[in-house]
Amino acid sequence: MSKIQIIATGGTLDKEYDSLTGELNFPQTHLPQIFAQALVTAPVEISPLMALDSLQMNDSDRQMIAKACIETNAHQIVVTHGTDTMVETGKMLITLGESSEFDKLRGKTIVLTGAMRPFALGNSDAAFNLGAALMAAQTAPPGVYICMNGLLHSADRVQKNRQLGVFEAQ
Amino acid sequence: MSKIQIIATGGTLDKEYDSLTGELNFPQTHLPQIFAQALVTAPVEISPLMALDSLQMNDSDRQMIAKACIETNAHQIVVTHGTDTMVETGKMLITLGESSEFDKLRGKTIVLTGAMRPFALGNSDAAFNLGAALMAAQTAPPGVYICMNGLLHSADRVQKNRQLGVFEAQ
Amino acid sequence: MSKIQIIATGGTLDKEYDSLTGELNFPQTHLPQIFAQALVTAPVEISPLMALDSLQMNDSDRQMIAKACIETNAHQIVVTHGTDTMVETGKMLITLGESSEFDKLRGKTIVLTGAMRPFALGNSDAAFNLGAALMAAQTAPPGVYICMNGLLHSADRVQKNRQLGVFEAQ
Amino acid sequence: MSKIQIIATGGTLDKEYDSLTGELNFPQTHLPQIFAQALVTAPVEISPLMALDSLQMNDSDRQMIAKACIETNAHQIVVTHGTDTMVETGKMLITLGESSEFDKLRGKTIVLTGAMRPFALGNSDAAFNLGAALMAAQTAPPGVYICMNGLLHSADRVQKNRQLGVFEAQ
Repeated sequence: MSKIQIIATGGTLDKEYDSLTGELNFPQTHLPQIFAQALVTAPVEISPLMALDSLQMNDSDRQMIAKACIETNAHQIVVTHGTDTMVETGKMLITLGESSEFDKLRGKTIVLTGAMRPFALGNSDAAFNLGAALMAAQTAPPGVYICMNGLLHSADRVQKNRQLGVFEAQ
Repeated sequence: MSKIQIIATGGTLDKEYDSLTGELNFPQTHLPQIFAQALVTAPVEISPLMALDSLQMNDSDRQMIAKACIETNAHQIVVTHGTDTMVETGKMLITLGESSEFDKLRGKTIVLTGAMRPFALGNSDAAFNLGAALMAAQTAPPGVYICMNGLLHSADRVQKNRQLGVFEAQ
Repeated sequence: MSKIQIIATGGTLDKEYDSLTGELNFPQTHLPQIFAQALVTAPVEISPLMALDSLQMNDSDRQMIAKACIETNAHQIVVTHGTDTMVETGKMLITLGESSEFDKLRGKTIVLTGAMRPFALGNSDAAFNLGAALMAAQTAPPGVYICMNGLLHSADRVQKNRQLGVFEAQ
Repeated sequence: MSKIQIIATGGTLDKEYDSLTGELNFPQTHLPQIFAQALVTAPVEISPLMALDSLQMNDSDRQMIAKACIETNAHQIVVTHGTDTMVETGKMLITLGESSEFDKLRGKTIVLTGAMRPFALGNSDAAFNLGAALMAAQTAPPGVYICMNGLLHSADRVQKNRQLGVFEAQ
């Protein structure tokens, strides 16, 4: 069975409350803990690539994500990502895939997901979203997807509704 | 967008601790709470069909599940189920689908899932499994599946490893 | 049995994560939920007085707390409070008690407590601290106290160690 | 500062769900985790003495608890205990204290506490009760007490109301 690559880039999903400062920060990714709690035996490999609030992500960060998707020999990839610019990153992965430098992206199933509430704060959507994204990476055809709210969207046909905090088909 | 039918049959996923008796029981299904926490906007419809420990399920109960899968006009179905006889129910759904009375089962994607630890006790695999199963119901071809541990198995090619508490391809 | 007054002033204990803004705010006090979870039958009366980060509290706010302590007919009082200036408020209650306007403070047992991690984020010290403070209010002689870390300090002989995030005798 | 002895005897407080058997058992005491979460700096020493459902406790077990209370040089003691026979154990500690063999019990503050819902299952009264009991052990005069529901009862003047799941003055 081929491995599934999980690329962590930060986002709300991985934030934690720092008791000393009273602020939210990124200690280290909670993905191993989430997969352990879910008793995952699927052959996942977790790569912490960066730990950014997605509002602070720039094009260079997004190229780094694209490179990580190419360099892994996995064809099934989940990218955890902040929700604010998740769609922007998804669209850039589609665009980059049209260039010769990044054309290997096109043969892969890349599923972006995240959370509206950090896993570490309890009552979070993180585990559900990650379960859905891991499944989508294994069952959906090659392409770049956003997996949130129990739905799978092609990354070029979705937007975040900031008032409601959910993703909608566009 | 067509609705996705969620049929609750009980199982560990839905158990809760009763403080007065000190025992685990089935108050009412936690599925609405799990979907709310996950901010699900997918068009799910939840039907509590029964609330059984799957060791207590008999063939008549399994026929009732089969009928519920036929009677809904949904073609994407998630069945929450105790893990101990989840595979047995899955196999019976396949067998029943071969009879003329239940042949409508064959056109549907039916995904059985559950949990090794009740959702209500925290640190549970329930939300992850349900996220994965909801996605599988939308992305996998018609058939009967077991979705556990981040993997999707055809129901006739999987078994539960009771020592490890995980499902394995057979 | 005489009632025990619980005066909520905000602080970390009562903060919650806002999924839409990604920030911590004060929705409404979690004290009723904490007491319900603890199956409290002690005759507590909860008064939400203000909802402030204690770094934003000024002398006028502290006088309002003093007045609330006087105006209740309860002689056993718990004040939930941010940890950063909890000691400052405690000392001011002692000082005010020496004036004729506020001399009724001197006959009461006033216990300040709070939390280093919000109750709503899970894995919090809030419930433990509140249990300890509620007991101290019933068992300690009149005075103004800080109850944190399983210890009861007279408010004029304690300081917060900000590096360690704990309160120490001074 | 003198140490406070914490004697663990089991009870609901320390139970955990076993995913493989689907039953509740006693893995090891959760007291260190509860104190760590509460950021306790009070000088507590935790002794796991036994791990029993209190309905299975007999007089010999209760004598063992009495001996443990005598043998520690601490004068402030918290005993975690199942709620069903907590009062019975408390009364026996009072009775034993009247004999010459156990008369050292009389100089100590012994506080029995427990929980109606296991700490490990979340949403538990355990941390609150333990905070209250730890404070009572430090502030109440020598005697044997039951500390539950935010109240401190002398062990010979309290009973458990099994219908409501709370302790009441008798």
